[in-house]
Amino acid sequence: MIINNAKKILIVGLGLLGGSYAMALKKKGYTVTAIDVNPQSIDYALTNQLIDSGATTADPKLIADADIIVFALYPHTFTRWVKDHGHLIQPGTVVTDVTGVKSCIVYEVQDLLPEGVEFIAAHPMAGRELSGVENSDDSIFRGANYIVVPTDKNTFSAIELCKSLGQELGFKDVSLLPPEKHDEMIGFLSQLTHCIAVSLMCASDDPNLEKYTGDSFRDLTRIANINDEMWSELFLANRDCLLSQMDRYRNAFDRLYNCVKNADREEMRSMMRFSSERRRNFNKKA
Amino acid sequence: MIINNAKKILIVGLGLLGGSYAMALKKKGYTVTAIDVNPQSIDYALTNQLIDSGATTADPKLIADADIIVFALYPHTFTRWVKDHGHLIQPGTVVTDVTGVKSCIVYEVQDLLPEGVEFIAAHPMAGRELSGVENSDDSIFRGANYIVVPTDKNTFSAIELCKSLGQELGFKDVSLLPPEKHDEMIGFLSQLTHCIAVSLMCASDDPNLEKYTGDSFRDLTRIANINDEMWSELFLANRDCLLSQMDRYRNAFDRLYNCVKNADREEMRSMMRFSSERRRNFNKKA
Repeated sequence: MIINNAKKILIVGLGLLGGSYAMALKKKGYTVTAIDVNPQSIDYALTNQLIDSGATTADPKLIADADIIVFALYPHTFTRWVKDHGHLIQPGTVVTDVTGVKSCIVYEVQDLLPEGVEFIAAHPMAGRELSGVENSDDSIFRGANYIVVPTDKNTFSAIELCKSLGQELGFKDVSLLPPEKHDEMIGFLSQLTHCIAVSLMCASDDPNLEKYTGDSFRDLTRIANINDEMWSELFLANRDCLLSQMDRYRNAFDRLYNCVKNADREEMRSMMRFSSERRRNFNKKA
Repeated sequence: MIINNAKKILIVGLGLLGGSYAMALKKKGYTVTAIDVNPQSIDYALTNQLIDSGATTADPKLIADADIIVFALYPHTFTRWVKDHGHLIQPGTVVTDVTGVKSCIVYEVQDLLPEGVEFIAAHPMAGRELSGVENSDDSIFRGANYIVVPTDKNTFSAIELCKSLGQELGFKDVSLLPPEKHDEMIGFLSQLTHCIAVSLMCASDDPNLEKYTGDSFRDLTRIANINDEMWSELFLANRDCLLSQMDRYRNAFDRLYNCVKNADREEMRSMMRFSSERRRNFNKKA
């Protein structure tokens, strides 16, 4: 399937996600091009046939030729790029992204782009503990969620095109959320969980723990191995949401703390039963 | 291998762990007997050849015949049982257990047992999110830690016998810790992690979360599906240790909270780098 006759897709930013997009889309028969400041990333992608052509600067021809442009950059680099080179994007081009925070990005980018260029935001909820185009792997999209994040400025056809892109990439569920709801949800499910994992890992430097650790501790700290440059930017870009989710979680933790302190076994068991029942709904559906 | 000529092993309490012990030991050629108040558990174990014989009461003959007795009961049931029936245990018998907390149990049980009966505590760090003898599975011991928890009262030979038992069961690492160190370590690695998972699961009842959840949230809450009867007892039995580990973790969480609040990106990144580096040491060794 070729989405709405779009044949040429330009990816700006060839990291793990950009590279995995390229891999998936090339397999589907699209012409995929890429721009990345790092010549080694472009070389790698060309050598491994992830892209058809690429450039290390904002090449006007690559930009003008694209039917769809996907930005796979950190938030501040994304807005910077649009400010510097957005005028090169031709009317009729649809622009989307992979950014993990939305409110602080979407409205600004929609305002910055030239007349006739539509930005429809999306968040592919997939990743690995590794980074860089060399670790590209389109299997990370399988079974994962893809969220389209429209504003009032978006057209029905661009929303549909973005949903089709999620399906083409191989995501299991494609859904819609407004930017504010997206940020609230991601603040809880993704950013808060990373805060917890990092805090737990930082809570003790006892070197003996490694010897006795079991699966519980390993599971809770898998994501404590974290890209500090990216995540610190994402945390601060979603600061208010994240703080309120951290407050919400700390209240629950303090409730349990007080149960232990006051030996209130009934209240403790009632939290555990609530938690057990609710957790069962989160098991992965086949 | 038959441990120190011990041939008959009695398991008191046929739940998931007791049943999995029986399964592993029968395969190794031991005569395995069991006592459990629930006739269905004994029936199941007999029908499925997990045990050679069993009883639903403290059968004096089964108790007297055993070379080793393994208690796989909740802490308060364990001490209760020893108070009521401990006098039936013959001198020369070695007694061990699977209890997840130690200081509050070990000294008391050692004092309660008759002269000539030695109690050497152990903690098999293995389990499942399921309970009951029907879910017995001796593969849970593979790759897992087995901790022998001796006091000054224990003899070299009983400690060695208990270590051999851990090896016979199929544990990967068998190590030694004093009761207080054990409880501190388990308070951090196991009890605190369960507190975190339960708190996170209780922090929001938004039914939409399930639709958008990713692997991070699933990993952090796997153990939020918890046996409330057992864990509330374990938490309270290790209360002081657990509270101090919860404090320690909350300090780290608050540090990160303040980084977000004050937009202190450098300190945030330094926590993330510490966390990432330390987490790499916790990967499972093949």
